[in-house]
Amino acid sequence: MEIKRYKHDAKFSYTLGMALTIELIKCQKDRIQKIYIHPDYVARDNTYNIFNICQEENLPYEINQKVFNRLSTKGNTYVIGVFEKYDAEVEQEKPHIVLVNPSDSGNLGTIIRTGLGFGFKDYVIIRPAVDIYDPKTIRSSMGAIFHVQFSYFDTFEQYLKICPAHKIYSFMLDGTINLKEIKERPDTPFSLVFGNEAAGLSDYFHNYGESIYIAHSNEIDSLNLSVAFGIAANVFSE
Amino acid sequence: MEIKRYKHDAKFSYTLGMALTIELIKCQKDRIQKIYIHPDYVARDNTYNIFNICQEENLPYEINQKVFNRLSTKGNTYVIGVFEKYDAEVEQEKPHIVLVNPSDSGNLGTIIRTGLGFGFKDYVIIRPAVDIYDPKTIRSSMGAIFHVQFSYFDTFEQYLKICPAHKIYSFMLDGTINLKEIKERPDTPFSLVFGNEAAGLSDYFHNYGESIYIAHSNEIDSLNLSVAFGIAANVFSE
Repeated sequence: MEIKRYKHDAKFSYTLGMALTIELIKCQKDRIQKIYIHPDYVARDNTYNIFNICQEENLPYEINQKVFNRLSTKGNTYVIGVFEKYDAEVEQEKPHIVLVNPSDSGNLGTIIRTGLGFGFKDYVIIRPAVDIYDPKTIRSSMGAIFHVQFSYFDTFEQYLKICPAHKIYSFMLDGTINLKEIKERPDTPFSLVFGNEAAGLSDYFHNYGESIYIAHSNEIDSLNLSVAFGIAANVFSE
Repeated sequence: MEIKRYKHDAKFSYTLGMALTIELIKCQKDRIQKIYIHPDYVARDNTYNIFNICQEENLPYEINQKVFNRLSTKGNTYVIGVFEKYDAEVEQEKPHIVLVNPSDSGNLGTIIRTGLGFGFKDYVIIRPAVDIYDPKTIRSSMGAIFHVQFSYFDTFEQYLKICPAHKIYSFMLDGTINLKEIKERPDTPFSLVFGNEAAGLSDYFHNYGESIYIAHSNEIDSLNLSVAFGIAANVFSE
């Protein structure tokens, strides 16, 4: 099979770089199709050696420069892991992070990295949205995406049907509750809902549960989405 | 004068895009050398019209396509503001944000945008560090950099000499105080100190003031710098 530059409808995606590929092997070994190794690859030490790891884990590997020319935009990538994309549905009884129409792969990856750090492992994405399997998302997640579950929905209403009992907290510039008033994590399942980078959440999210704002001065229009998410996730972490 | 693509030692820098240029005009009008307008520019409406603004503010402007080909990496820029770089020393009695060796222009801009949102207007940058006047920093700050003061120092010790009474809070993975224990902003001047994206702060920062950590699970190595900064700045905001 010829490996092509990632497209949304591809069956496979890939990790660019040693650290990401190690996360892939650790978490999703069974999805791996092949590990590609650049002819100039030099192992940092005996344990952090991709040849040893592939042999120990019984993973197919190949030394192949062309694949790097084709897939890698940066010159300093020496290991690529190609894996089959998989479904990893969110667990219904867990707290959920809901991202409505996220449009930036870098932000999506950073959000998942941050969320995993604060114990959130279940991500709901409402379309239209960027692709969680885009290699840019994988890279900015620092491999966190291999540790989490995620489900895509076409509308927020479709998502609500699978978790009617979740308490909804929508983050909005004109929310009614100041985040600083939230002193502890709810003890029932909840969903933290964030809008698109440019547009935020539309007014009708005021109809669901509580709306929360992060107080900031009017010298800026809004906070960066992944920064706002980090501030909220820290407050709602265990 | 011919306008060239930005270099660190240039006397001038520039804003790429209408919204950034408006911030520049609002905050640093006297530094502006010229406003360039793309021949395809179309005003969104009468008030948000760069020709009207330049006339009202008595600013020199020029319709010139070549400048856009030379400076702009994205096709959708129609307004560029060229301005003379300036010194804007931090105010000694104010709280300071201290960034030790920041290496990513995008992070630096996001930090200043976030910090301004939480009322921080004084930034100290310890070299080696990215250039605050890099057009990428300006862009990711969303123009916040025109609202703040900043000073560069070669070492942290040199910085300490100008503010010996500031209470120092260093953010470190192995800090001694959990950020969640900080319940209110100190009422004396303080400095929030953050390390480089990859390396963090070195051990000797344990010798100054208090060290703080942001609790997160061991499933991630660290938080993204601008996310960690946002979480801290929110706690220390007024």
